Amino acid sequence: MQRHFDQEFSGLKDQILKMGDYVQESVDMAMKGLTERNLQHFSRVHELEILVNQSHIEVDEACLKVLARQSPLATSLRLVFSIVKINADLERMGDQAVNIAYNGQHYLAAPPIKPLIDLPKMGEEVKLMVRESLEAFFNADIELAKKVLIYDDVVDELKDKIFKELCQMMKQDPSIVEPALNLILIARNLERLGDHATNIAEEAIFDASGQDVRHGSAKP
Amino acid sequence: MQRHFDQEFSGLKDQILKMGDYVQESVDMAMKGLTERNLQHFSRVHELEILVNQSHIEVDEACLKVLARQSPLATSLRLVFSIVKINADLERMGDQAVNIAYNGQHYLAAPPIKPLIDLPKMGEEVKLMVRESLEAFFNADIELAKKVLIYDDVVDELKDKIFKELCQMMKQDPSIVEPALNLILIARNLERLGDHATNIAEEAIFDASGQDVRHGSAKP
Repeated sequence: MQRHFDQEFSGLKDQILKMGDYVQESVDMAMKGLTERNLQHFSRVHELEILVNQSHIEVDEACLKVLARQSPLATSLRLVFSIVKINADLERMGDQAVNIAYNGQHYLAAPPIKPLIDLPKMGEEVKLMVRESLEAFFNADIELAKKVLIYDDVVDELKDKIFKELCQMMKQDPSIVEPALNLILIARNLERLGDHATNIAEEAIFDASGQDVRHGSAKP
Repeated sequence: MQRHFDQEFSGLKDQILKMGDYVQESVDMAMKGLTERNLQHFSRVHELEILVNQSHIEVDEACLKVLARQSPLATSLRLVFSIVKINADLERMGDQAVNIAYNGQHYLAAPPIKPLIDLPKMGEEVKLMVRESLEAFFNADIELAKKVLIYDDVVDELKDKIFKELCQMMKQDPSIVEPALNLILIARNLERLGDHATNIAEEAIFDASGQDVRHGSAKP
C-alpha cells in the first residue's frame, strides 16, 4: 500500500514541479515583455496560463484519486492535503503573471516612465521564491522555507518603495498617471505572487515540523 | 459509516457558514469605517481576522480528521475536498477585508475625495456574493451559483469605472494622488473578494453538476 502511495505521490510531485516551472517562466516572460517592451513575451504568458490551468485540474483529479484509492493515513494524508493547497497557490500565481502581462500591455501603450525602478528586481526575487518554496516543500527543508519568508519581507519593502516613488512622480507630472498606475498594479501583482510562494513555504514548515507558521504566528 | 460522515460534515458546514458570517461582517465593517470615517470599525475588522484565521486552522484540521477516520468515497470525498478549498478562499477573503481596513486607514489620514464613487455599491455586491456562493454550495443550487458569477462581472465593471474616474481626478488635481490611490487599491481588494466568492460558486456548480466552470470554460 505504502509503495503504491509513494509511486502516486512521486507522480504528483513531478506534476507540481512542472507547474512551478510554468509559473516561473510565466513571471519571467511577463517581466521581459515589460523591460524589453515586447508584446510577444506577453503572448507566451497566455500560452503558459493554459498549461498551468490544465495542470491545476489534473493535479486536483489526481489528488482525489489517491485519496479514494489509497485512503492514506497520517503523514501521507497530510502530504496530499498540502499538494491540494500548493496546487491552488500555483494556479493563482499563474493568474498573477497574466495580470502582469495585462497591466504591462496597458503600460506599453504610453511612452515609458524612465527606468522601471525596482520592478525587475522584484520579479527576480519572486521567481526565486517560487523555486525555493517548492524545493523546501519537497525536501522538507525548513531552513530554505524560512529563507523564502525572509524574501517575502524584501518583496514587500520593494513594493512600498515603488509605490512611494511612483506617487511622487505622478504628483510632479500628472500626465503619467495611467502608466504609473499600471506599474503600481504590477508591483501589487508581484507582491501577491510572493504571498502565494510564502503560503507554500509555510506549508513546507508545517509538514516538516508540525509548527504552524500561518497567520504570522511565527514569522522569523 | 455514512451516518457518521453526515454528522461530521454537518459540523464542517456550520463552521464554514460561521466563517462566512465573519467575512461578511468584516467587509461590512471595513466599508463602514471608510464611509463613516470611523477608525473603530477598522479595529473590529482586525478582531474578526483573528476569528477567521482560527476557524481556518480548525476547519483544515477537521477535514483531515474526517478523511483519516472515515476514508469517504466518491461524492463525500469530493465534498470534503471542496470544503478544504472554500476554507482557503474564506481565509483569503478575511485578508482582503483587512487590506481594505489598512488602505482605508491611510485614506482617512487625508481630506476626503468628495463622494466615494461606486465603492460602497461594490462592497454591497461583494457581501451578497459571499452569502449566496455559500448558500449555492450547501444547497447544491446551480442557478444561484450562476447568479454569483454574473455579480462578479458587475463587480469587475464597477472596478474599471472607479479606476477610470480616479485617474481622471488625479490628473486634474495631483494633490489627491495618495488618497485616490488608496481608493483604487480598495476597489482592487473588493474585486479580489469577488473573485474568491466566484471560486466558491464554481465549486458549487462543479459539485452539483460535475461541470467544470473553472478557468472561464463555461462562464455564463
